[in-house]
Amino acid sequence: MNIGIVGLGLIGGSLGLDLRSHGHQVWGVSRKEETCQRAIARGAVDDASTSLTLMKNTDVVFICTPLGVMQATVEELIPYLSEDTILTDVGSVKGWVVDAIAPLWENFVGGHPMAGTADSGIEAALRNLFVGTPYVLTPTETTPTRATQLVEEVIRPLQVQIYHSHPHDHDRAVAWISHLPVMVSASLITTCMGETNPTILELAQALASSGFRDTSRVGGGNPELGVMMASYNKAALVQSLHSYREALNQMITWVEQEDWIALEAALKQTQAARLQFLR
Amino acid sequence: MNIGIVGLGLIGGSLGLDLRSHGHQVWGVSRKEETCQRAIARGAVDDASTSLTLMKNTDVVFICTPLGVMQATVEELIPYLSEDTILTDVGSVKGWVVDAIAPLWENFVGGHPMAGTADSGIEAALRNLFVGTPYVLTPTETTPTRATQLVEEVIRPLQVQIYHSHPHDHDRAVAWISHLPVMVSASLITTCMGETNPTILELAQALASSGFRDTSRVGGGNPELGVMMASYNKAALVQSLHSYREALNQMITWVEQEDWIALEAALKQTQAARLQFLR
Repeated sequence: MNIGIVGLGLIGGSLGLDLRSHGHQVWGVSRKEETCQRAIARGAVDDASTSLTLMKNTDVVFICTPLGVMQATVEELIPYLSEDTILTDVGSVKGWVVDAIAPLWENFVGGHPMAGTADSGIEAALRNLFVGTPYVLTPTETTPTRATQLVEEVIRPLQVQIYHSHPHDHDRAVAWISHLPVMVSASLITTCMGETNPTILELAQALASSGFRDTSRVGGGNPELGVMMASYNKAALVQSLHSYREALNQMITWVEQEDWIALEAALKQTQAARLQFLR
Repeated sequence: MNIGIVGLGLIGGSLGLDLRSHGHQVWGVSRKEETCQRAIARGAVDDASTSLTLMKNTDVVFICTPLGVMQATVEELIPYLSEDTILTDVGSVKGWVVDAIAPLWENFVGGHPMAGTADSGIEAALRNLFVGTPYVLTPTETTPTRATQLVEEVIRPLQVQIYHSHPHDHDRAVAWISHLPVMVSASLITTCMGETNPTILELAQALASSGFRDTSRVGGGNPELGVMMASYNKAALVQSLHSYREALNQMITWVEQEDWIALEAALKQTQAARLQFLR
């Protein structure tokens, strides 16, 4: 097939590397000429250009830009597409994306490959990045079956675990396991850095070990990414934050009232429940 | 020197292995005969007994029992000690321990070696467990200087980083970086497992990855240990929980009011501050 990739970063570049190795012709578009040249040199695309005209003979186009420019990119792209070209995206939030793009292009199915590294950009692109990772597709009642099937056909050889979900269910799920943890973790760091006694603060900094390291990791990550998650998935995140505050309040009450039986029962439940999330 | 170790678990056993390799004679006491035999067989002690009479010629005794039986153990031990024997402990909370034991024995200095593994018991004991890890001593105004000096002399060859701290400062510091993270992390698991839509819950469980894994790790740990921390360090933990709730409320307000500038500024601060805790 002729595959288009708009946005040649970590995800777009890694998709290109794998799709080419599975026999597809891959055409890439980036805003920067330098990125196009690096994508060609790295073998992530057969050819690349800063112009969307390169998308004119594609069967499937992956929109791999940041969420913030996705809608504008699709509006710009549409004049170059043939009617039966399938569009999909790789954004980490789906409700907002599907609401924005589905009205613009009938043959659109939202997608979220849940792979990545701490790095970004075309130089960070990797072969086999997606092996064994979840890839959520979010067709709705109005998505043509053929669109979903064709995207599945293209991504299945990457050895991804394909899930289907309603866009808003996807957003609730990733709020729980990805976006809420960032806010919970960042609040921990904020609290600890607020210690006003310098002797205690210095001791805490010296003694911090694996427990603090792990619990604070995602809260000490990329600030722009945290804001992006919060702004594009606000409704689900706010709902999960309210639930979290209730759970925290319950925990505080048990400690204040020295209800160690209830606290131990809760910690036994969390110990068991965690394993259900990490099978 | 003649070193006594009361309680032959992970910490007591590991201390024994290292102290013997530094030329000390090590005498161990455990409640269980089987543990005594295993400690001898593993080379963690020169001899071991279920009777505290074995402590009668010791220069320094490390109390390595769980916090809950520490005071009773010391009361039982005292009749066997010579007046100038130095007592120290390895409990993870220090205010409560020092308040309980210092009135019983003048030559006492609290201690907290901050090393460990996920395992427990004499079979989990390891050589060089303490190398490069913090070892906090908590002498107070009434602690004899000689007691602190002698404990330092014994532990320094283990290549620990020795810190001195007031017992209550220690407890505040470990509340921030160790006990608060457990409650924050457990509350995250409780919240996520509370999703009432089974489709979303199953998707969340399937998609949970490194972010959830790390943030939930200590909240999915040993429940008894979590309750022990909370009960023996209640005052400092409650204080840190209240501060945490304030930080969380601020975070929720920013998201609700879409104050992305404030949120991004906060996340930039947490990104920088985290590194101060993990030098």
